[in-house]
Amino acid sequence: MVTQHTRAQHAQSITSRAQDYAQWYLDIIAAADLAEHGDVKGTMIIKPYGYAIWERMQHILDDKIKETGHQNAYFPMFIPKSFLSREATHVEGFAKECAVVTHHRLMNNPNGEGVVVDPESKLEEELVVRPTSETVIHAAFARWIKSWRDLPLLINQWANVVRWEMRTRLFLRTSEFLWQEGHTAHATEADAEEEARKMLDMYAWFAREVLAMEVIPGEKSESERFAGALRTYTIEAMMQDGKALQSGTSHNLGQNFAKAFEVKFLDQDNQQQYCWMTSWGVSTRLMGALIMSHSDDKGLVLPPEIAPYQVVVLPLWKKEEEKAAVMEQVSALREQLQHVGVRVHIDARDYETFGTKVYGWEKKGVPVRIEIGPRDLAQNQVMMARRDTGEKKSVAIDQVASEISTVLEAMQKALFASSQQRLQERTVTVDSYETFKTQIETGGFFLALWCGSAECETRVKEETKATIRCIPFEKQQQNGKCMICNAATSEQVIFARAY
Amino acid sequence: MVTQHTRAQHAQSITSRAQDYAQWYLDIIAAADLAEHGDVKGTMIIKPYGYAIWERMQHILDDKIKETGHQNAYFPMFIPKSFLSREATHVEGFAKECAVVTHHRLMNNPNGEGVVVDPESKLEEELVVRPTSETVIHAAFARWIKSWRDLPLLINQWANVVRWEMRTRLFLRTSEFLWQEGHTAHATEADAEEEARKMLDMYAWFAREVLAMEVIPGEKSESERFAGALRTYTIEAMMQDGKALQSGTSHNLGQNFAKAFEVKFLDQDNQQQYCWMTSWGVSTRLMGALIMSHSDDKGLVLPPEIAPYQVVVLPLWKKEEEKAAVMEQVSALREQLQHVGVRVHIDARDYETFGTKVYGWEKKGVPVRIEIGPRDLAQNQVMMARRDTGEKKSVAIDQVASEISTVLEAMQKALFASSQQRLQERTVTVDSYETFKTQIETGGFFLALWCGSAECETRVKEETKATIRCIPFEKQQQNGKCMICNAATSEQVIFARAY
Repeated sequence: MVTQHTRAQHAQSITSRAQDYAQWYLDIIAAADLAEHGDVKGTMIIKPYGYAIWERMQHILDDKIKETGHQNAYFPMFIPKSFLSREATHVEGFAKECAVVTHHRLMNNPNGEGVVVDPESKLEEELVVRPTSETVIHAAFARWIKSWRDLPLLINQWANVVRWEMRTRLFLRTSEFLWQEGHTAHATEADAEEEARKMLDMYAWFAREVLAMEVIPGEKSESERFAGALRTYTIEAMMQDGKALQSGTSHNLGQNFAKAFEVKFLDQDNQQQYCWMTSWGVSTRLMGALIMSHSDDKGLVLPPEIAPYQVVVLPLWKKEEEKAAVMEQVSALREQLQHVGVRVHIDARDYETFGTKVYGWEKKGVPVRIEIGPRDLAQNQVMMARRDTGEKKSVAIDQVASEISTVLEAMQKALFASSQQRLQERTVTVDSYETFKTQIETGGFFLALWCGSAECETRVKEETKATIRCIPFEKQQQNGKCMICNAATSEQVIFARAY
Repeated sequence: MVTQHTRAQHAQSITSRAQDYAQWYLDIIAAADLAEHGDVKGTMIIKPYGYAIWERMQHILDDKIKETGHQNAYFPMFIPKSFLSREATHVEGFAKECAVVTHHRLMNNPNGEGVVVDPESKLEEELVVRPTSETVIHAAFARWIKSWRDLPLLINQWANVVRWEMRTRLFLRTSEFLWQEGHTAHATEADAEEEARKMLDMYAWFAREVLAMEVIPGEKSESERFAGALRTYTIEAMMQDGKALQSGTSHNLGQNFAKAFEVKFLDQDNQQQYCWMTSWGVSTRLMGALIMSHSDDKGLVLPPEIAPYQVVVLPLWKKEEEKAAVMEQVSALREQLQHVGVRVHIDARDYETFGTKVYGWEKKGVPVRIEIGPRDLAQNQVMMARRDTGEKKSVAIDQVASEISTVLEAMQKALFASSQQRLQERTVTVDSYETFKTQIETGGFFLALWCGSAECETRVKEETKATIRCIPFEKQQQNGKCMICNAATSEQVIFARAY
């Protein structure tokens, strides 16, 4: 319990951001024990600590989703292949790379070991594992909705979805991932538009207030729109390397799906009308955004609002006879903190060295670490260390609860301020395509005028790998020329490379 | 708001239990709007009210699972086909009827409309959608566990699973269903056995205290054991028609899976040892058990502990000028009830008749209904109706909160007492196979001696459709003869027909 390891010794397993940002990201996930690859290529195992963070996200979002009048439900994950073709644009966007179920039985291999697919069990119609659930949910809505009294219909689902991916990255892009998908039906276009914007606002609130991550809300260009939508709204965050990460989307589907799935209602004048629909979702991708927003070369950094443990307490003692007194103080402290709603964990493992524990919790990003030893006990104090700043100080034992609350609040604010500052500093206005092509190499968001043509958008993508992240809601009014083709325009967009 | 429909008019959509128990079950589900069939045969859509009940179950179980030291995690739903063959018994039990993913891409149909499977996208190894996750989880455990310090490893997962079913019934048997599956690894056989029994105790606690459903805990016979397990424990409930419903199982897997997946640890003497493992689960099947335990010919009956709404308040008024005063009282009442932790819903829909609302909530099984109208207001009282007994009474407005608590508690107890009584009354000891064959036709549990042979067990199943539900933990010690073959034995088991 006494050997003190040096920081260098423990930190060496994490590649620095400066050296290799992509490797740093993977090292953080491994060091904090958040996730690992599954046995099937492209799949992910979310380990207990990573899943605890996801559960916090679910819990907070679920409360908000219910507060805004939505109800949870569950729909089957298998979609008949023919459903995907009903909405013409949708199939182009989603039906292509997906898991296809063709049989429903295995049998013992007649030629030896193991099992093989029973050819007799071929399905009449192949099934696709949902890449998203508009089709099955709208087919149900068509049965559920009869009249204006049934509207708005506000449904949410927490589920796993599959989009076959060849190049995967933990949390950011995996073939199976977890998400929530909201699906709503409304009587008027205005109601659907209001809903789509309201849920985007909820996502922006969540990103900022809970994940301490600044985002730019805006609309997607046509080419980046959800397959089948009238308009797609997005929140775009900036990672520490200046790349964008789409962190939530909300779609006004207009009447496209309603017409494809015959989702109709009798209005108050007894006329049949098609519903106006929306869908919106966030996924385990947010875990990637969270990791890349705040973490440093020592490990994960978690905003207090989302941290499964906000405080970890490390008791220490040299002689066995000191243990009882220390542990008594630790128990009292735990009660005191739980009483004020602080999520606290005691790490009293006696088979690990103190240093291993300190660096272990640092890697896991716990906002505040408290150390209590016999000397602290004698002086009626504890040592408190803050994860983001590294600041350490002694705090009188009867001040710990109030001091912790102050520190957690300060840390939440500081992380958001830092995210905000990064986004402000690294968002630059650019009007020359040549300048843009040079500057995009070092990352950042680029506010530029764009003529609105898919040609210019594609050219930028092909030449620089940057895409239009969004047409921001808030922008300076500005008339000028398209950065790419010089055509007159007033459409201001954000270009960036993205995850 | 004034037309009073008669009970007969509203109740006619539910078939009586006496007339057709199977149809009654489906009618209850439809009348309470709990679930419906999905578009793919064998799948189920869990509708918002049904899902709210499942969420209550999840919430209560999840708390208990965490209190007992388990952590949630998430594992991929795709299992490589070869994994299933690793544990020899397991593949026989599970690999046969399952969803097989063979391709990962669709393409536009070259011959016309729609999409077809792209033959180029055939997978090298087929994937199976998890029917249960022992295989993938144990493969991960083999990587995670190094030494005795990593044990016990206590993991739980909430997930969807698929077992292909041709004959499906909502909640009771659907090809995709939701469940939790616990998976644990231990250093000793005794630890694994203790865990398996502890989690079965948790299920029994949940069935009795939350679902108000009496159960008989016991061990499964070899033929009913989980594929690959050393011992399977079960809780068996009795439905109103006297049939059994297996309501939760817990398996001591011994070292079978540990050997198949190389789950080993270094013990304190630095020796490699195989882990001892368990798994345990309950599913959306519990919804079926809940429905069939308590509901009556008027609709669903929900124990207060599990009801999404414990109280529904129906305000009523004739003249528009009475509305404000009534609604003010209703709001005050809601606050008062929420303050004492009662889950309350106000149904102020003014486009539905009062009668429709009354019978609608009756069908949904809400434990207590409160009616408040201008006359009640004048007398400072409300009308309170209890769902299970139908009892109605006036309660002084300042007594409502305490009266509600009393009624909810009484109803919870009464439903459990009734379930207990049914199980006691309809469990009979039988020693003649001839008597058994006659009596089994009218349902019930039959305590009988059994020689332990699979032959006798199979014979009973073939001749009577009854199976051994369990070898109960609590039984009278009794020496005698096997009910079927007359061989000397002291093994007492429960035979019943089951869902």
